[in-house]
Amino acid sequence: MVGYAFMGAAHSHAWRTAGRFFDLPAAVEMTALCGRSEERVRAAAERYGWASYETDWRALVAREDIDVVDICTPGDSHAPIAIAALEAGKHVLCEKPLANTVAEAEAMAAAAENATGSSMVGFNYRRVPALALARRLIAAGRLGDIRQVRAQYLQDWLVDPDFPLVWRLREEHAGSGALGDLGAHSIDLAQYLTGRPITSVGALLTTFVAERPLPAGSSGLSATGGAGRGEVTVDDAALFTARFGGGVVGVFEATRFAGGRKNAMRIEVNGSTGSIAFDVESMNELAFYDGTEDAGTAGFRRVLVTEPTHPYMDAWWPPGHLIGYEHTFTHQVRDFVTAVATGTGPRPSFADGLQVQRVLAAVKASAEASGVHTPVTESR
Amino acid sequence: MVGYAFMGAAHSHAWRTAGRFFDLPAAVEMTALCGRSEERVRAAAERYGWASYETDWRALVAREDIDVVDICTPGDSHAPIAIAALEAGKHVLCEKPLANTVAEAEAMAAAAENATGSSMVGFNYRRVPALALARRLIAAGRLGDIRQVRAQYLQDWLVDPDFPLVWRLREEHAGSGALGDLGAHSIDLAQYLTGRPITSVGALLTTFVAERPLPAGSSGLSATGGAGRGEVTVDDAALFTARFGGGVVGVFEATRFAGGRKNAMRIEVNGSTGSIAFDVESMNELAFYDGTEDAGTAGFRRVLVTEPTHPYMDAWWPPGHLIGYEHTFTHQVRDFVTAVATGTGPRPSFADGLQVQRVLAAVKASAEASGVHTPVTESR
Amino acid sequence: MVGYAFMGAAHSHAWRTAGRFFDLPAAVEMTALCGRSEERVRAAAERYGWASYETDWRALVAREDIDVVDICTPGDSHAPIAIAALEAGKHVLCEKPLANTVAEAEAMAAAAENATGSSMVGFNYRRVPALALARRLIAAGRLGDIRQVRAQYLQDWLVDPDFPLVWRLREEHAGSGALGDLGAHSIDLAQYLTGRPITSVGALLTTFVAERPLPAGSSGLSATGGAGRGEVTVDDAALFTARFGGGVVGVFEATRFAGGRKNAMRIEVNGSTGSIAFDVESMNELAFYDGTEDAGTAGFRRVLVTEPTHPYMDAWWPPGHLIGYEHTFTHQVRDFVTAVATGTGPRPSFADGLQVQRVLAAVKASAEASGVHTPVTESR
Amino acid sequence: MVGYAFMGAAHSHAWRTAGRFFDLPAAVEMTALCGRSEERVRAAAERYGWASYETDWRALVAREDIDVVDICTPGDSHAPIAIAALEAGKHVLCEKPLANTVAEAEAMAAAAENATGSSMVGFNYRRVPALALARRLIAAGRLGDIRQVRAQYLQDWLVDPDFPLVWRLREEHAGSGALGDLGAHSIDLAQYLTGRPITSVGALLTTFVAERPLPAGSSGLSATGGAGRGEVTVDDAALFTARFGGGVVGVFEATRFAGGRKNAMRIEVNGSTGSIAFDVESMNELAFYDGTEDAGTAGFRRVLVTEPTHPYMDAWWPPGHLIGYEHTFTHQVRDFVTAVATGTGPRPSFADGLQVQRVLAAVKASAEASGVHTPVTESR
Repeated sequence: MVGYAFMGAAHSHAWRTAGRFFDLPAAVEMTALCGRSEERVRAAAERYGWASYETDWRALVAREDIDVVDICTPGDSHAPIAIAALEAGKHVLCEKPLANTVAEAEAMAAAAENATGSSMVGFNYRRVPALALARRLIAAGRLGDIRQVRAQYLQDWLVDPDFPLVWRLREEHAGSGALGDLGAHSIDLAQYLTGRPITSVGALLTTFVAERPLPAGSSGLSATGGAGRGEVTVDDAALFTARFGGGVVGVFEATRFAGGRKNAMRIEVNGSTGSIAFDVESMNELAFYDGTEDAGTAGFRRVLVTEPTHPYMDAWWPPGHLIGYEHTFTHQVRDFVTAVATGTGPRPSFADGLQVQRVLAAVKASAEASGVHTPVTESR
Repeated sequence: MVGYAFMGAAHSHAWRTAGRFFDLPAAVEMTALCGRSEERVRAAAERYGWASYETDWRALVAREDIDVVDICTPGDSHAPIAIAALEAGKHVLCEKPLANTVAEAEAMAAAAENATGSSMVGFNYRRVPALALARRLIAAGRLGDIRQVRAQYLQDWLVDPDFPLVWRLREEHAGSGALGDLGAHSIDLAQYLTGRPITSVGALLTTFVAERPLPAGSSGLSATGGAGRGEVTVDDAALFTARFGGGVVGVFEATRFAGGRKNAMRIEVNGSTGSIAFDVESMNELAFYDGTEDAGTAGFRRVLVTEPTHPYMDAWWPPGHLIGYEHTFTHQVRDFVTAVATGTGPRPSFADGLQVQRVLAAVKASAEASGVHTPVTESR
Repeated sequence: MVGYAFMGAAHSHAWRTAGRFFDLPAAVEMTALCGRSEERVRAAAERYGWASYETDWRALVAREDIDVVDICTPGDSHAPIAIAALEAGKHVLCEKPLANTVAEAEAMAAAAENATGSSMVGFNYRRVPALALARRLIAAGRLGDIRQVRAQYLQDWLVDPDFPLVWRLREEHAGSGALGDLGAHSIDLAQYLTGRPITSVGALLTTFVAERPLPAGSSGLSATGGAGRGEVTVDDAALFTARFGGGVVGVFEATRFAGGRKNAMRIEVNGSTGSIAFDVESMNELAFYDGTEDAGTAGFRRVLVTEPTHPYMDAWWPPGHLIGYEHTFTHQVRDFVTAVATGTGPRPSFADGLQVQRVLAAVKASAEASGVHTPVTESR
Repeated sequence: MVGYAFMGAAHSHAWRTAGRFFDLPAAVEMTALCGRSEERVRAAAERYGWASYETDWRALVAREDIDVVDICTPGDSHAPIAIAALEAGKHVLCEKPLANTVAEAEAMAAAAENATGSSMVGFNYRRVPALALARRLIAAGRLGDIRQVRAQYLQDWLVDPDFPLVWRLREEHAGSGALGDLGAHSIDLAQYLTGRPITSVGALLTTFVAERPLPAGSSGLSATGGAGRGEVTVDDAALFTARFGGGVVGVFEATRFAGGRKNAMRIEVNGSTGSIAFDVESMNELAFYDGTEDAGTAGFRRVLVTEPTHPYMDAWWPPGHLIGYEHTFTHQVRDFVTAVATGTGPRPSFADGLQVQRVLAAVKASAEASGVHTPVTESR
């Protein structure tokens, strides 16, 4: 595994835990962790349970005792690591978004297609049991013909204008802001749940706080904003409408300025005979509306997605006992290991990740296009 | 009052009831009801408590025993009635949206400006105590600088493709579909709550069901769609992003195809120090987040807006006892009568209604503009 | 109508409004309002729309132009007024609880049985559409065999120890405290919904604040508690378990000390194949669980009880538009007038009210019995 | 660890995981798992990560390489194992309820008091961050003087009368039914949150389904109920009122027949200046009402208990990312190991567990006492 920050902790837990609860078709050995700082990567390897460590990902990729490379670094390093790993015959699990640009993503998808190993993008929310159930219901036709999607991903950790200028706020590292960090999840889910690709978008990106204090100890950021401050070069909020194939339309919003919303990734899908609604802040629940019920007792059901018949849940606890955020990664490991061992192509594939990347690029292009927004004027 | 359908029943109740619960500065007499069918208008006048009736609105407007004209007809007749009534020196309360076109709305606003009488548009949701409280909190600075709005107005009564082609589905009568019927409320509220006008929009309109059965007994509709069917000439769903003055951005959605959502008019506003959220399906509640609270106990509060200190609520019941939909009209009558009697200009004014109309027109123009939506393509 | 305080306002509105929305089998005329203070009853009559007034209920009962007497006074005067009115051949609608003692209630029930007129108790929550729907579902067998009830009625207006010693806090006027004021509603509803009488109870009553300031201008209360303070002689909270006929068990709580709960009258009923849950703070919703559904999608449904097929709702607004507290009284008038006009016995009858009174008495007796509570001790 | 069923899986995960997320003052080694069936205990040890296994708990207790014994067996074996382990100088963590009888619990508490090792009962819900936060708020006086508790523990897995007669339905193994299995949690929490012991109770126990099919392969159960069926000898539902020290009162309910409630352990506490409410089906949320707020904006706050300042949460994920059921056991291990390593007495102690046991016994005694329930009768 490359990278050992927040995502590294989550992925390590998943690698350590999946085989304890699921019957995996292959044994998992946590061989090596990779990071640039020897002192920190050594400590992280011990803490998270990795048997060895490397300080250069090229060395990691070259090791013969490694079959799978799991990439948990910022987006700007995804492409070189993933392509090298695939070319070295490894199976690759890569965090989302796939890359920072469409060009990088295209190269990665091409590498994946030519590789002997399997590859998958870490859109972990597909592994939330409630969302896997939603997909199951839609695929089974319980919602009829899909017509509308509304997706919001709301956080609030940037509300304070003195929050520092971390790497996620610089385009060269993160590619984009709320759009790629949060919106990418919504885009993947919307396409996954509906089974339809997004074909066009109309977008608005905005940055509320243009400059922020440089993080303690930072140096690499250009302090364009006066003493100790630097420029935010990504979007704080991304809003867009979308057309999917098949006449489906949707509206999307990603922001890190929605005070009081900590991790409100919400999605609602309406079809001709039913609807589903979900909020990851209540991730063990799916709201399901069956429009074929008698009007007298129809209504959104609060399905507590903790039954053994629900996706992934036979491995866990009795009904009514909740699971949490890191379980999505454990499920991801289970699905990835199963796909690798059985030779089936895991999803979301790098091609799926590329499609998300293209939507992200279209959103940016739309937001930058002149004339996209129509002024409110006098009589027309 | 002109018109006696659904809106007429609500308005009649309000005229009958306001003086029973509020101390009005002028007595209300329900003088005459007006409608085209003598048989039906006579029955409605008796049912709703009007002392007389007319079958031609011109006759109504000409009556000297009438001070106020309340217009509850479809949008295509708003302009002629309102302008004539204003020119006849009446005070005018006109249902929303103000008109079907910007040109009509401009003529109405001009008439209002030149009139001796007062005029007001019936955006009744401003009179929901929870929303009046939201405005009070925002005006008092409890949310800090406003940054984002997300507004949804979701209904589902058109999900069935065999629902008939009623007047609301024809542009010549209704002006637009979900956009004007539902979205107009959201637009007015967003501008009212934030205190900011919308300055530009990027929109997508769609019609899911292109043809519907003609209503029983209909004749005037052009049956373009084959035997007994006619074309839907308005939008089924309207989606748009918006820029307001002052850097505020918002996302809007109006639809009558959201299965299971019966009247979900929702609005959330985020500022630099707080947020509010509201859903008219739970209209006695306001969710309020105070971002200045200690992080350990901060959270959206469910404020049950039934305290005597809440707007309008000292007239009603003890705390915890709910009010319903028609109370918004009773409050509207109270505010209108008070404004008329005291000579203060009631809000929302026809100028406010015109601004909403301009936003509606910009949404339509944006949706029709080529190139507004950006295709999702290969490497750019 | 006798009495014109909070309840009088609600009942007046109902008498004024029922015929505007429902097709009543008889016309309603609001003939006379009765209260002891001439100045205040005259003003109230004008405000609420009563054609005349009386200052002695005996005079009201004696009037020949009156067919119906509606009693909205404190509980200690229910019995004499109701019995006199019934003996005078009037139809009687009496607020709940029926009386302050079982003996009074027995006399009233006997008078009702011997009377030519109809009689009904004002347990208005039976007229909440969501609860009428719950009864309909239970009666139709949708919950199977009923097994458990849990009922709470939570308010918080007595939390402040300086809230004054109003009549509701003195046994001679109110009979009991939270028990009769709030618990009576829960008892009636539990018996109504399950169709089973309560047969035994085990209770605990408590008074948290023993003395309170005398209300401004009061004189009749015995100021036993020192200067300007008087003793609270009723319960602040009532808690009890109950056995119903047919093996059903239940748990009840009524309190006016539950901080933050303004009018949380909640009831949940579990049967062998389903459940319902309700909270009057969200009175337009019924939670319904159908245990016969597939486990994969089963869950409590939020039924928005605003469809035309729901009880009472075809008279009101389109789906998703809420009704409020006073509608329960309008529905009560509709049901009472219909029963009177058609000669069918309205429910809840005085006999139903007597049964509630007997439960209230058993609760008090249980709470006063020595040995009812079992001490927690060492090894037994 | 002794026992490897549902609880054993949860405890194993906790022992495996605590040191990965928390800085423990002592290293954890998972030395041996104990169970009666060699085949099954060997497989479980491998699955859950135990280095060895035993088939006799006496052998386990005698091992010198073991410092801590974790007891996850049914209640009837808690006392002998715990006492032997304590006498052997081990530290003991014992699942709840502490025992099946007060006498056993007294012997265990005495053994704990005389032991050199530490001991703790596994009331894991104390380790839910939201409940630990509730305790923190109450201890800090944010609720003022505590007055009322309402606690429900609702499940529905026995609704089906053909669910088999498992050990939890026989008194000789489980001690009691819903009372000990579920109610014990509520009792411990109520005493923990309020800081007050329960001093007396008034109770009702009931069994809805008297006989059930014997489990496949069972033999030990007396088939009193005809061919292949046996008698249920424990309560299906337990309802009781309670008095605590200091004038606090409460109402409790535990049932496994509440259709649609999967694991609804709910508790609400009202004080003179505030309230908290909690439901473990939404275990990452605490509802908090601050009664000192201005009435205009007061309301229950939905505190998402995922901030780093919240108990235990600095070890996990960013705000808004949920944790699940097994985290309570991981927190329990962290607290237990910390207490053992630092020599501070861990809570809940065996004495705390004994107090819960005494309440359970009082509930049973009350339910069996004649005359506890007061019949609803004619005039008294």
